Amino acid sequence: MSEGACYHTAGMTVSLTVLPDNRELQVPAGATILKAAQAAGIDITATCGGRGRCTSCRVKFLRGTVPPATIMDELQLGADLVREGYRLSCQCRVTEPVAVQVAPPLDERAFQMLGADRSIRDVARVVIGAGIAKQVVKVPLPREEHHQTSDLEELLGVIGRTTDDIAPAILRELPLTLRDGGGEVTVTTFGRQVLAVEKGDTALMKFGLAVDVGTTSVVSTLIELESGEQLASVASLNPQAVFGGDLMSRIAFAQFNPVNLRKLQTRIIGLLNQHVEEIVRQSGVLAKWIYKVVVVGNTCMHHILLGIDPSYVGLAPYAPVMRHSLVLPARELFLKVNPEARVCLLPIVAGFVGADAVAVALATRIYESSEVRIAVDIGTNGEVLLGSKAHLWACSAPAGPALEGAQIRHGMRGALGAIDRVRIGDEVEIHTIGEVAPLGICGSGIIDLLAGMLDQGIIDHSGLIRLEDRDRLAPRLRERVVMRGEERQFILVRPGEAGATGEIVLTQEDIRQVQLAKGAIASGVAMLQHVAGIPSEQIAELMLAGGFGNYMSIESALRIGLVPTLPAGKIRYVGNAASLGAQLCLVSEAERQRADRIARGIEHVSLAAHPAFQDLFVDCMNFPRRA
Amino acid sequence: MSEGACYHTAGMTVSLTVLPDNRELQVPAGATILKAAQAAGIDITATCGGRGRCTSCRVKFLRGTVPPATIMDELQLGADLVREGYRLSCQCRVTEPVAVQVAPPLDERAFQMLGADRSIRDVARVVIGAGIAKQVVKVPLPREEHHQTSDLEELLGVIGRTTDDIAPAILRELPLTLRDGGGEVTVTTFGRQVLAVEKGDTALMKFGLAVDVGTTSVVSTLIELESGEQLASVASLNPQAVFGGDLMSRIAFAQFNPVNLRKLQTRIIGLLNQHVEEIVRQSGVLAKWIYKVVVVGNTCMHHILLGIDPSYVGLAPYAPVMRHSLVLPARELFLKVNPEARVCLLPIVAGFVGADAVAVALATRIYESSEVRIAVDIGTNGEVLLGSKAHLWACSAPAGPALEGAQIRHGMRGALGAIDRVRIGDEVEIHTIGEVAPLGICGSGIIDLLAGMLDQGIIDHSGLIRLEDRDRLAPRLRERVVMRGEERQFILVRPGEAGATGEIVLTQEDIRQVQLAKGAIASGVAMLQHVAGIPSEQIAELMLAGGFGNYMSIESALRIGLVPTLPAGKIRYVGNAASLGAQLCLVSEAERQRADRIARGIEHVSLAAHPAFQDLFVDCMNFPRRA
Repeated sequence: MSEGACYHTAGMTVSLTVLPDNRELQVPAGATILKAAQAAGIDITATCGGRGRCTSCRVKFLRGTVPPATIMDELQLGADLVREGYRLSCQCRVTEPVAVQVAPPLDERAFQMLGADRSIRDVARVVIGAGIAKQVVKVPLPREEHHQTSDLEELLGVIGRTTDDIAPAILRELPLTLRDGGGEVTVTTFGRQVLAVEKGDTALMKFGLAVDVGTTSVVSTLIELESGEQLASVASLNPQAVFGGDLMSRIAFAQFNPVNLRKLQTRIIGLLNQHVEEIVRQSGVLAKWIYKVVVVGNTCMHHILLGIDPSYVGLAPYAPVMRHSLVLPARELFLKVNPEARVCLLPIVAGFVGADAVAVALATRIYESSEVRIAVDIGTNGEVLLGSKAHLWACSAPAGPALEGAQIRHGMRGALGAIDRVRIGDEVEIHTIGEVAPLGICGSGIIDLLAGMLDQGIIDHSGLIRLEDRDRLAPRLRERVVMRGEERQFILVRPGEAGATGEIVLTQEDIRQVQLAKGAIASGVAMLQHVAGIPSEQIAELMLAGGFGNYMSIESALRIGLVPTLPAGKIRYVGNAASLGAQLCLVSEAERQRADRIARGIEHVSLAAHPAFQDLFVDCMNFPRRA
Repeated sequence: MSEGACYHTAGMTVSLTVLPDNRELQVPAGATILKAAQAAGIDITATCGGRGRCTSCRVKFLRGTVPPATIMDELQLGADLVREGYRLSCQCRVTEPVAVQVAPPLDERAFQMLGADRSIRDVARVVIGAGIAKQVVKVPLPREEHHQTSDLEELLGVIGRTTDDIAPAILRELPLTLRDGGGEVTVTTFGRQVLAVEKGDTALMKFGLAVDVGTTSVVSTLIELESGEQLASVASLNPQAVFGGDLMSRIAFAQFNPVNLRKLQTRIIGLLNQHVEEIVRQSGVLAKWIYKVVVVGNTCMHHILLGIDPSYVGLAPYAPVMRHSLVLPARELFLKVNPEARVCLLPIVAGFVGADAVAVALATRIYESSEVRIAVDIGTNGEVLLGSKAHLWACSAPAGPALEGAQIRHGMRGALGAIDRVRIGDEVEIHTIGEVAPLGICGSGIIDLLAGMLDQGIIDHSGLIRLEDRDRLAPRLRERVVMRGEERQFILVRPGEAGATGEIVLTQEDIRQVQLAKGAIASGVAMLQHVAGIPSEQIAELMLAGGFGNYMSIESALRIGLVPTLPAGKIRYVGNAASLGAQLCLVSEAERQRADRIARGIEHVSLAAHPAFQDLFVDCMNFPRRA
């Protein structure tokens, strides 16, 4: 909004609606939202005093024209949030009726993917011991010229070490650090390695980052390393997706030209650095206080992150380039935490059973179970684990991105406005995340929808929309089953329903995508049972893991045959287990060592190579004939 | 020369003089020098067939107008050589009388500084064992999907290692390297560290670089690591000198602004990379085959190379930031040899007794002598070592750059055209490097000149040019002693003498600079003798080290009191001992470990802190009263 526009409207009042209070105010046209709201007694925090120097007074425009972003908006909020309608309320003026939400979460996108409500101590008996030690010491400075010594020798003497494992980057600052603080410094170590020497006492500042790099989604979680407390987390789409939605297309892209591999690597590292920035903003923790990072991901993501050519991961026999766990300094990955922070990559099992599967095994404690359990990690490249403390089998379950809402006509991630619950009786009932107007449908909603469509006979067990039989449906359902052009569709939401501005449909092709996804998972489970010789009756528990596990209806999952037919009581959600496994290794070195042992113990079952697989997969694509 | 110029002179002949044969040819105007010389039966090598694709046919213009450089000249020879009058003879045409030298050394600047004639086996009993191992192996590629393995595991299995010490950069290329060569690869290791995996058999390619970073000069030497043979070496001025000729001014510059430290670091790393390029060009050895680099230098050069703040090295008590030896990958220093090559920095003794002093101790074997010896490393920041296998003392001798020809009116380094020998009888006799027309005077020439001036009474023992007494001199000397403005001068060369184009003089101020230099060295020696309680009679030998040691007259050095009064037979040149020490550590890990022990055993004597020093220094500034 230009200054000119303000003068035109001076002297008039306009309507300003402020959420979540939902109060409608009449405010002087041209006033800033911050001042207008505060004048009416609405409490908007403005830490910097309304000078555009922080983000605390941010609002999100829900109705009315979003004013053009000021330079302060761009600087403080960044391009993404600005695009999503975020503004600093101290910077923008009211000239027409608008509605704004006060202090919306800075990363709304992380809303539901995460399991951000779980603390690592809640989900696992874990003894905290991250391996990061901080010592506050007073170092005597060299005083006499004849006394042969150096700054470093004096420092090592005081902390009782003789290590040479100190990077030149730390030595660069050492003389000033020692002298600035009068010799009082905090020394951070990880094993034999000196990670940082900081002026003064910073003993309380000890943080780590757990990162789960999925094919479609990337989740980063900040953890305080003494308590294991989760301080912030950010999730977003993997930006590599523009180069291919699934692993095979990304491998092909990487293979095409060596520059492409670099592009993929740069994308993911760039995203992780955005996550760090966002986490720093959310938590107030400085990036330099992040001394340990644990990364899990499938083999291909792992290789690309390291810049390793993944070509042969995509070709039989799908051999990874390396499988061992790796520790390297953050600077080598250009990760903008403490440059000397140790980035720990968990070990890999096979070309398509990666460090994420190892993390799931760790988090679900399946490796110590006396009975046989199954863990299913649902994702674009899911994995299935089956076994007990006696033996563990694993296979990949390449579901594709449909259950994450991608490659679905009106699919979306589990974010604000996504339909996450559907019930079909005589009419369709929907629920959206945040209970706002629906924008699209996410994985748990799709599964509910398909279960309801099966129950009502809208689709048959082969997945076909029964357009021809729609007359048997309740009248208000009947109108939703349509043929448009060559395409069968089910109209979930019409424009205007539940405040929707557009139509939301599920197409025949969407259903096929979901069938491919659930077929991959179900056949993976069945194959492991087959190879291990474990019938369903002997399965003590099936643990569902993945970004949306917490929001999925077990009944619906059973109804569509996503999981094998087990009593509902034997099926349990375990959250984003890959991320939790990374968090365990972040707070506990013992867990990280355990990950190595687990990885070596897992037996990889190759589905494609197995003669029985193809038939099984086709069977699993179909839906069960009855609930 | 433009094409147009060629046409104008077509049909005429012009004179072309070719050195070193010194044949004058009459050649068709417009012909290339290469063709004209070859037509006359003069053998100029043109490896690329005269297409401007190599440097073998290079000539240097000695007389006549140097033609403008072609793009091929720029590409093949580089800006420095082009500026010095080098051209490719296949590219430039003769249009006026010129004289050229065929195939001058590519790095003439290295001409005399180096001791490049010495091989490491000649000067020291050393058992070669550089620690770099190459194994040629055939790696079976993963074939079966069920066989759980990875490229790296297969490789490590074949070479019988379980190391994790392999950089991601090597893993990046591993799949292609293995498959391109059908599984045959050469694995290079240094201790537990895998440095390279190369396709095919490269077992014979095993090279290392020894680098001596002096305040004024930098010398790099390429060595074949199995034989210890020296293949190439390059020397040049330290480009940091533009920011200060001595250490204190560079420290002050670095202190002034953190960006300045970066500038100093970038300069030296840039130079080392130029050296690598030049060495690659000279030797044909690829940079990626250089797997080990040993660097020596004084403490300040060491710190700056690593980017470590040297501020406190310049302040009492002159404490270094670190003293231990260091090994780091070349990529961390942006050194363009093999990125995983290990760069080994030798240990440091004190703020002004650096790794170069340790290298001198190593190369001179002073640490195993049963009698007391002295080693003097003459350089801008020289050091003196005194002792035997029982004990070693060391001090710094900050001579300044005068003895390297810097900060002297007509001083120059020991390069082509430098006056390196002077004898004064009734008249002045000079000798120049390369026996060409004199361009300036280098360190050994200055020392000869001063000795002669003392003998003839042209200067007195305080260093004053005795202008008032010049009538007592031989007539031809008398005219050379002049007063110009306020300044006393001795005219060494007049324009036209010995082909000189300009005058070469030694000023009163030049003499003062040399007095400061020789005072620092002589007083350092005297102080160590004083502290150790060793009179000159007990000194078994004095070893002179440094870039020009081989070219200096011992008589002259004794005459001016640069070295203590010992029988000439007890004084020996040992060449560029710092560089030789680096070479020893390059070819032998045992020597590199010995360097650590030696460094810990050296007792540093601080001159400035010693009450007797000031008087001693003033005494040593004067010249001895009689020869």
